[in-house]
Amino acid sequence: MKISILTIFPELFSDYLDSPVIRRALQKDIAKVDIVDIRDYAKGSFRHIDDSPFGGGPGMVMRCQPVLDALEDVLRRNKEACAPEMGRTLIAALSPRGETYTQKTAHRFAELSHLILICGHYEGMDERIYSHTDLELSIGDYILTGGELASLVIADSVIRLLPGVLKDASTAEESFESGLLEYPQYTQPADYKGDKVPEVLLSGNHEAIRRWRQEEALRITRERRPDLLINSQAEKSD
Amino acid sequence: MKISILTIFPELFSDYLDSPVIRRALQKDIAKVDIVDIRDYAKGSFRHIDDSPFGGGPGMVMRCQPVLDALEDVLRRNKEACAPEMGRTLIAALSPRGETYTQKTAHRFAELSHLILICGHYEGMDERIYSHTDLELSIGDYILTGGELASLVIADSVIRLLPGVLKDASTAEESFESGLLEYPQYTQPADYKGDKVPEVLLSGNHEAIRRWRQEEALRITRERRPDLLINSQAEKSD
Repeated sequence: MKISILTIFPELFSDYLDSPVIRRALQKDIAKVDIVDIRDYAKGSFRHIDDSPFGGGPGMVMRCQPVLDALEDVLRRNKEACAPEMGRTLIAALSPRGETYTQKTAHRFAELSHLILICGHYEGMDERIYSHTDLELSIGDYILTGGELASLVIADSVIRLLPGVLKDASTAEESFESGLLEYPQYTQPADYKGDKVPEVLLSGNHEAIRRWRQEEALRITRERRPDLLINSQAEKSD
Repeated sequence: MKISILTIFPELFSDYLDSPVIRRALQKDIAKVDIVDIRDYAKGSFRHIDDSPFGGGPGMVMRCQPVLDALEDVLRRNKEACAPEMGRTLIAALSPRGETYTQKTAHRFAELSHLILICGHYEGMDERIYSHTDLELSIGDYILTGGELASLVIADSVIRLLPGVLKDASTAEESFESGLLEYPQYTQPADYKGDKVPEVLLSGNHEAIRRWRQEEALRITRERRPDLLINSQAEKSD
């Protein structure tokens, strides 16, 4: 799978792309991440990537030309490289106005051959850019300086789902995968300064442990995120 | 304001902390970000930071000792540095099971003098660690490799709200601040390959522009996130 990230700040990505899980995926050729500098595509004598908004207001807006030329070039290069897989390319723009990204979206993206993420910055992008994308995505209801962290969040959450990156068993019992938040985990020592591990986990009784974990996952979900239980029931009855 | 990030991967942060807005806040001494390496606090002959979960299952769980010793040291050092402000310290652990982080949380955090973020990793942290934190936080309903990106998301969204970091007018009209998603923005040229800017924005009629933007913000919010309208009405009637 290839992830292309279009950004005006390509220098923000190196550290995180070298994090253990992503590095492993890149080294094993399971994933490829391509950071595309939008500034390289800016034309005209001043090579402006942004300008003031029409109609007034504070801040700067990213211009169509550099973004759309970068996008066109990425699509063209990809077409030359792997023509038969073009149907599984998706272009998403990161924006607080977008559809909320969830684990379900991550699974959907993990099936793609090419995911293109466009990072907005400043006051946003010229609205005409969005008609060249498949969707707008938001990673949550808060405002970031730009789309760069959001695109790393998406890359990280998708790459770890690709076959061969993690041991398969690790992802199956995680929060959101079963529709429940994860049960509590404990490790050595059994007694930490008087704070003890629940007896059942030391019992060696696998059935009792399984049941305890299931009950705890349900209890925590009910207390903290009852909306997940309601949504998962609604889906079942669909 | 000081943000301390406790992590087992301190090397993942440098690039992003050097991004334009965060760098400006650090240089102007408006914010201070302190990356604390949990591994530095690991004791015992093997200095293990993780171990297998009690009760079995895949993956590794982060141990109490290194995390809690790191936390204690951060609190002690901060107490020595600025004793009178201790009441405005908050300790949050990043975890998919946590309370969902929103722009409202960002504003709340921007009032703190010290925010401490603990990054979980692997299969999670020993449950006993959470009783030493004020809250668990999640940046969205998806699974990341670890809490590192989540802590950067929080740091970025909080730091840009601190007075003196951005021009004040820039944040007031953003998505979520007014309870609505942001209206469309356009910049030069007025005609991009036949795709034109809405006439009203070129009219110079400020009242008509204001009205158009308000209507567009409402339309986009109604179409994409009707839940925001419902929540904002519920709050007003509280």
